[in-house]
Amino acid sequence: MNEFDLIEKYFNWKNPGSDTFGVGDDCAIINTTANTQIVTSVDTLIAGVHFSKNTSAGDIAYKALSVNLSDLAAMGATPKYFTLALTLPELNEVWLSEFSKALRRLAAEYQLDLIGGDTTKGDLSITVNIIGEVETGKALLRSGAKVGDLVYVSNTIGDAAYAWQQIQQGIKPSDFYLNRLNRPRPNIKLAQQLVAVAHACIDVSDGLEQDLLHILKRSKVGAKIDLNAIPMSAEVARYVDNTQDWCTVMAGGDDYELCFTVPKTSADALKTIEKNLNIVLTKIGVITKNQDLEIVGLDKACKSYQHF
Amino acid sequence: MNEFDLIEKYFNWKNPGSDTFGVGDDCAIINTTANTQIVTSVDTLIAGVHFSKNTSAGDIAYKALSVNLSDLAAMGATPKYFTLALTLPELNEVWLSEFSKALRRLAAEYQLDLIGGDTTKGDLSITVNIIGEVETGKALLRSGAKVGDLVYVSNTIGDAAYAWQQIQQGIKPSDFYLNRLNRPRPNIKLAQQLVAVAHACIDVSDGLEQDLLHILKRSKVGAKIDLNAIPMSAEVARYVDNTQDWCTVMAGGDDYELCFTVPKTSADALKTIEKNLNIVLTKIGVITKNQDLEIVGLDKACKSYQHF
Repeated sequence: MNEFDLIEKYFNWKNPGSDTFGVGDDCAIINTTANTQIVTSVDTLIAGVHFSKNTSAGDIAYKALSVNLSDLAAMGATPKYFTLALTLPELNEVWLSEFSKALRRLAAEYQLDLIGGDTTKGDLSITVNIIGEVETGKALLRSGAKVGDLVYVSNTIGDAAYAWQQIQQGIKPSDFYLNRLNRPRPNIKLAQQLVAVAHACIDVSDGLEQDLLHILKRSKVGAKIDLNAIPMSAEVARYVDNTQDWCTVMAGGDDYELCFTVPKTSADALKTIEKNLNIVLTKIGVITKNQDLEIVGLDKACKSYQHF
Repeated sequence: MNEFDLIEKYFNWKNPGSDTFGVGDDCAIINTTANTQIVTSVDTLIAGVHFSKNTSAGDIAYKALSVNLSDLAAMGATPKYFTLALTLPELNEVWLSEFSKALRRLAAEYQLDLIGGDTTKGDLSITVNIIGEVETGKALLRSGAKVGDLVYVSNTIGDAAYAWQQIQQGIKPSDFYLNRLNRPRPNIKLAQQLVAVAHACIDVSDGLEQDLLHILKRSKVGAKIDLNAIPMSAEVARYVDNTQDWCTVMAGGDDYELCFTVPKTSADALKTIEKNLNIVLTKIGVITKNQDLEIVGLDKACKSYQHF
């Protein structure tokens, strides 16, 4: 099997009603729509850095796509297309079959079309470049937070970092935590409803503390956060109670939840969104004028994950 | 220096008049234009596979961008934006400075904006996802070749593969050949003029034989090619004369020249393009009805480069 057969067998599929073409040409071609802007992001996952060597092909595919979907979510965009640059140590058809099946299933869920790619030989690494659409001028940015805004996060924080820590210690996390680490759900639907409500938004991939700092820096504001308000799942809450290790929660990263700010008048709108989507949104603090981040209850800043 | 400082220092620049924004957000935002389509492609370069360990940071940056520009050229598209996923073994500021300088210089030449990226730690690898624009319905495809069309290639074929072979044998190629290998010029201007003339087009990155086969397959036609018509630089022509090693020329790849088909009536238009751009376009054969590739003078098919 050569590179072309591999692409043909595992990566040549389209969603029903797909409007892309040119796949099989040097580039893919995308139609644009009036009054929309194109939104794009890229993320690389590397074996041993972003997932452990034991992670299944299906989980790797899922995560490679979902972390990019999460970036689109943070902008309030609708997913449309993606390209895949796949570096493989060997041609393993069992692995490829599982990888492509999981990729295709998640892509189909969002009517996301695979429109191009490149396969190369080397240490396992997956780069997804995702492309979405947003109504012109309506994208959620990091720069829109205003003094007095309430700061919210979706669902619970710290689950993925807690699971990763368990794995490092040789403990197998329960399915809930494994899924939070390996199969994070991108908050696409939530984000599309936040477009009408939120002033600023980011996805919590680098750790809540660091990602909130990005909003503050770009919005030229500060924030006062209440550590005790941070929403946590039961096991993580118990772990923090026992160890006082708040940094796993605040800086562990890999959460792919949304952190966003809304004006005080939007609290009711958020309740409606919570009900409609059966999701938990938690107020964790408020945007302040002085440009720093005060986390009430945290003694010192945590060290967030750094590649270098 | 952390990842954010690295991006700020080496990859946060815009071309004058850039219309992109959102860099620093989770995604970049691109404005679309009426009557245009978006064209996109992705290519990964890996140390030891696509370039030797001794290749300079500037040459690597140049090639990573130019091979993607070449894919846009093959579609007759205008370059607009790119994202960069960079995997680095270490944070080497001398290397990064040279890399970013060369990248920026080539990007500026085409008013190409760097709109997003990801830096990760691992074996050196560079994935560029390029985005261009083309007038709706005007993209050059592989599928448009018609029986009776003339088959052309731009400039000379085989230079890069010849240089690579010399390096493998411990011989330092002359500057011309090193540049053909490390700094291939994307044929953007040529392609934009071919849009009005050519029926089908591809860039010769995998080797002329294999890439022409892509056109034939997608167009459901055949071709008769004259080996003696293949344009070669002086040193490569001498090498082939001495060794009869046609496969380095026909299947070595890495040429980034354009192979395209035009109706017979367009021969004069091509002469004008040649003159305007000071470029050599050579007729190497003709499109035939029977769906196979006949290369007059070549005894057997060459084995093209395969990753696996």
